[in-house]
Amino acid sequence: MIAGGEFALIRRFFAPLAGPGGLELRDDAAVLDIKPGRSLVVTVDAVIAGVHFLPDDPADLVARKALRVNLSDLAAMAAEPLGYLIAAALPGATDEAWLEAFASGLRSDQREFSIVLLGGDTTATTGPLTLAVTALGTVETGRALLRRGARPGDRIHVSGTIGDGAFGLKALRGEAGSVAEGDRQYLIDRYRLPQPRLALGRKLAGLASAAIDVSDGLAADLGHICDASGVGAVVWAERVPLSAPARAVIAAGSGNLAAALTGGDDYELLFTIDPGRAAALKEVCEELRLPVTEIGEVVSAGPVRVIGPGGKELALGPGGYRHF
Amino acid sequence: MIAGGEFALIRRFFAPLAGPGGLELRDDAAVLDIKPGRSLVVTVDAVIAGVHFLPDDPADLVARKALRVNLSDLAAMAAEPLGYLIAAALPGATDEAWLEAFASGLRSDQREFSIVLLGGDTTATTGPLTLAVTALGTVETGRALLRRGARPGDRIHVSGTIGDGAFGLKALRGEAGSVAEGDRQYLIDRYRLPQPRLALGRKLAGLASAAIDVSDGLAADLGHICDASGVGAVVWAERVPLSAPARAVIAAGSGNLAAALTGGDDYELLFTIDPGRAAALKEVCEELRLPVTEIGEVVSAGPVRVIGPGGKELALGPGGYRHF
Repeated sequence: MIAGGEFALIRRFFAPLAGPGGLELRDDAAVLDIKPGRSLVVTVDAVIAGVHFLPDDPADLVARKALRVNLSDLAAMAAEPLGYLIAAALPGATDEAWLEAFASGLRSDQREFSIVLLGGDTTATTGPLTLAVTALGTVETGRALLRRGARPGDRIHVSGTIGDGAFGLKALRGEAGSVAEGDRQYLIDRYRLPQPRLALGRKLAGLASAAIDVSDGLAADLGHICDASGVGAVVWAERVPLSAPARAVIAAGSGNLAAALTGGDDYELLFTIDPGRAAALKEVCEELRLPVTEIGEVVSAGPVRVIGPGGKELALGPGGYRHF
Repeated sequence: MIAGGEFALIRRFFAPLAGPGGLELRDDAAVLDIKPGRSLVVTVDAVIAGVHFLPDDPADLVARKALRVNLSDLAAMAAEPLGYLIAAALPGATDEAWLEAFASGLRSDQREFSIVLLGGDTTATTGPLTLAVTALGTVETGRALLRRGARPGDRIHVSGTIGDGAFGLKALRGEAGSVAEGDRQYLIDRYRLPQPRLALGRKLAGLASAAIDVSDGLAADLGHICDASGVGAVVWAERVPLSAPARAVIAAGSGNLAAALTGGDDYELLFTIDPGRAAALKEVCEELRLPVTEIGEVVSAGPVRVIGPGGKELALGPGGYRHF
């Protein structure tokens, strides 16, 4: 295993990643000052080998995905990330090369997102590799984006493309059918390395009426907005933005739109916005060079309905990833 | 398993525990205001069945221990707890009765420590039950107790008694020898339900020069203070406070002082203090009705040395619990 035990492991692989409030990971907790006028935003999400990533996925990508699914939660609240803590339960077979790659993945994303490591905990486990990341950010007080603000008549928008994560997992499992190698790789990359939409989330504060990140599946996550807001929603299936590789999987008969809408792991932002703010939203998208697509409308009640070509409602089956 | 899936599980067992900033656990993250003049203190610690507690320990005590080991970290920093997040990886066999008892343990400690649930994540795992708790607190800016302030000549103190956690684990395993049933139960309770020394920690701000909570073992944790402060330490073995039940285990030949000093799981506060502040410390202990014992002295260099009866140094063997 690891020479020198837990403390040597922390000193060697994790302490170099610690930021100012992390006190070199030498203390019992991190100490952080929050700027006046800003509120703290905090979230935790665990990823487990065999559930959220494949046990032989590269360690640097495992680290970055564990971090990014949490940054995506901050993005959905319009927060600016500060740092993170990580609790790692490591199987006995974890070796130094794996930890080296894992730490280098964290390092690279710390640079990309201007965040620092604030604390953590490492333990040996007899079970699968389990990583619980707590992400901290801040937002101007009173400006956090919530799920509960959607109003009937608001338009439903989503960033980027939907279904790539689900089809990427299919591709990794050899179930994507006869698609070009480039398409296959594109989808796998999208599954392994989500892009938290932090810049978009920041711009949506004061603009969107409700927001969520798409982790459980677009249909299920839209359902969360509807539940929290006490509204219903209609989605036009043909407007749901799909990447060319995702279309190729569907054309090859290895996937369909329902799978894209319920597969999850997209980490795009799904939000509602008053139609009167369309021009302001267009400006934001152009500034960020990030495509955002209007896919439906908030209605006063009812479940999330997805209307397919010809006006027929799409049956989605159990919506979203179910852990239990 | 659990009827209704992950969201029903969260709604039923966890949402009722959520506090104001937790937004009924309906959003992607919690939003919290930190009072002006105070800094945020944040820590994460995971507990795993078979490592930190026994798989058949009562669910309410598992919940409370997972929480308390983190509150103990806040205590060591002189922080006042605000709330917590919990990432739970649950084995397939987890049933509703277990979750009900688990949630009731959390509820009881929320009342005891005036804290609220701020967020979480539940996942199914093929491995052992794994709980990562992130605890948040605040401290007056600039007043956090750190490990790095110990100076030669400072006196080393510890609260409560040492070794009960280690001997309690022994008792649970049937290895405590022929001690009275009352003693056995006392030690088991100490192992299962640590008492985070929050009130003492708050009073030590501005009084102690360095502090840590005893989780890895008194000798190892004193070593952490010494490393961080660039000093050494001498501990007088016969001054180390032991409970009557712990003495009974030693008398029965089933444990010794070295095991008490390296066993860990005590969650008492270990701190250093200028001898000139002895009167102020005495006042604090009397006010809190919490015994605090002077056990040694900080010296300018060297390892942690434990001096036994007759002036002979005690050989402790590998110090503290080692995960790797």
